[in-house]
Amino acid sequence: MVDLTELMENEVFMAFASYTTIILSKMMFMSTATAFFRLTRKVFANPEDCAGFGKGENAKKYLRTDDKVERVRRAHLNDLENIVPFLGIGLLYSLSGPDLSTAILHFRLFVGARIYHTVAYLTPLPQPNRALAFFLGYGVTFSMAYRLLKSRLYL
Amino acid sequence: MVDLTELMENEVFMAFASYTTIILSKMMFMSTATAFFRLTRKVFANPEDCAGFGKGENAKKYLRTDDKVERVRRAHLNDLENIVPFLGIGLLYSLSGPDLSTAILHFRLFVGARIYHTVAYLTPLPQPNRALAFFLGYGVTFSMAYRLLKSRLYL
Amino acid sequence: MVDLTELMENEVFMAFASYTTIILSKMMFMSTATAFFRLTRKVFANPEDCAGFGKGENAKKYLRTDDKVERVRRAHLNDLENIVPFLGIGLLYSLSGPDLSTAILHFRLFVGARIYHTVAYLTPLPQPNRALAFFLGYGVTFSMAYRLLKSRLYL
Repeated sequence: MVDLTELMENEVFMAFASYTTIILSKMMFMSTATAFFRLTRKVFANPEDCAGFGKGENAKKYLRTDDKVERVRRAHLNDLENIVPFLGIGLLYSLSGPDLSTAILHFRLFVGARIYHTVAYLTPLPQPNRALAFFLGYGVTFSMAYRLLKSRLYL
Repeated sequence: MVDLTELMENEVFMAFASYTTIILSKMMFMSTATAFFRLTRKVFANPEDCAGFGKGENAKKYLRTDDKVERVRRAHLNDLENIVPFLGIGLLYSLSGPDLSTAILHFRLFVGARIYHTVAYLTPLPQPNRALAFFLGYGVTFSMAYRLLKSRLYL
Repeated sequence: MVDLTELMENEVFMAFASYTTIILSKMMFMSTATAFFRLTRKVFANPEDCAGFGKGENAKKYLRTDDKVERVRRAHLNDLENIVPFLGIGLLYSLSGPDLSTAILHFRLFVGARIYHTVAYLTPLPQPNRALAFFLGYGVTFSMAYRLLKSRLYL
């Protein structure tokens, strides 16, 4: 059997693994936030979910939408749309042998920007807080994509 | 050229590859399910999709939403929200040299939980079937994230 | 420290890295397209986003939905639903030692199909343009999943 620990001894890869695990855990927290607001505000999307809150027509009144729940769901979808590219591009970038301090700067800025984005979305903070957080994360991912394509393009 | 088969000779990595391929294929099946319900129930989101079912105003009546279609779409989005973290965290966990039987237990529980989640969502089964399936998959991913961060944190 | 450049010297992996970076960058462009249409058409989902366009009730009228914005959002979500499986299955397929020309054919067809899908969705082109683009990308991903499971199944 092969000793894969050599990959995990690579410092850039270990940093990527750490920051990715943190930001994916943060994204998973959005599911809990949605469930929390759905239960405390009694706002559901499925008839079977509100069966415990009443019978028949009485339960159906909880099949509704709510501003706060929709806000969390939009923040969650925005996370998905931005963390998926980071996941793919960041992994390949990490394996392309970048400078350690440059790589860690990218990872830190991205994770910081996405956490700030969530805070700005859920509080909500006035614009352009959320827009800036979004574009910072976006720019970091593009910067990694650019470096990857510049040095390793193979079509 | 490098012989990459060494990575594929690693048993944990091969198991991760197999279970991931299965669960991603299952997720792709949700697109087919949406298309199936859209066509059999004549429920569309785009004017160009219902052009074959009538002309002008006659076709526009198919631009509507449907409980069953929306249910499949919610199940699909929930898959995305949960399989993306599994993909990222599971890959890094697999490369961190975990115990083979522990790793396979994680993969099996996750794949089983997500298949059960889909069955519970589409049937639909009464709660807490779907909630339990969700939290089982969620817990498995967090367990992998915890082990990864505990042994390999590098910030 | 380990020299990871050996992975990046593998031609299949380099090709996967290049095509993946391109298609993920295209997907990220959808966020910009959504922002562009939201700003030019003054269509927003959050009260704080339209605060700059008026005060109080005057601003609230911009909290609405718009056909073009919803179309871009659907195209973006469809990208997510299809590019995530490509990312996971494609990565594992690339590491399983496939034939170089077969692998590149898969990557090119997928990237071409998804770009065509976006053009067909946003123009919009009459059906079955979009459906064909969708099923081509779908078929390519399944073909990689099939080859992976056939040669490396480990459950």
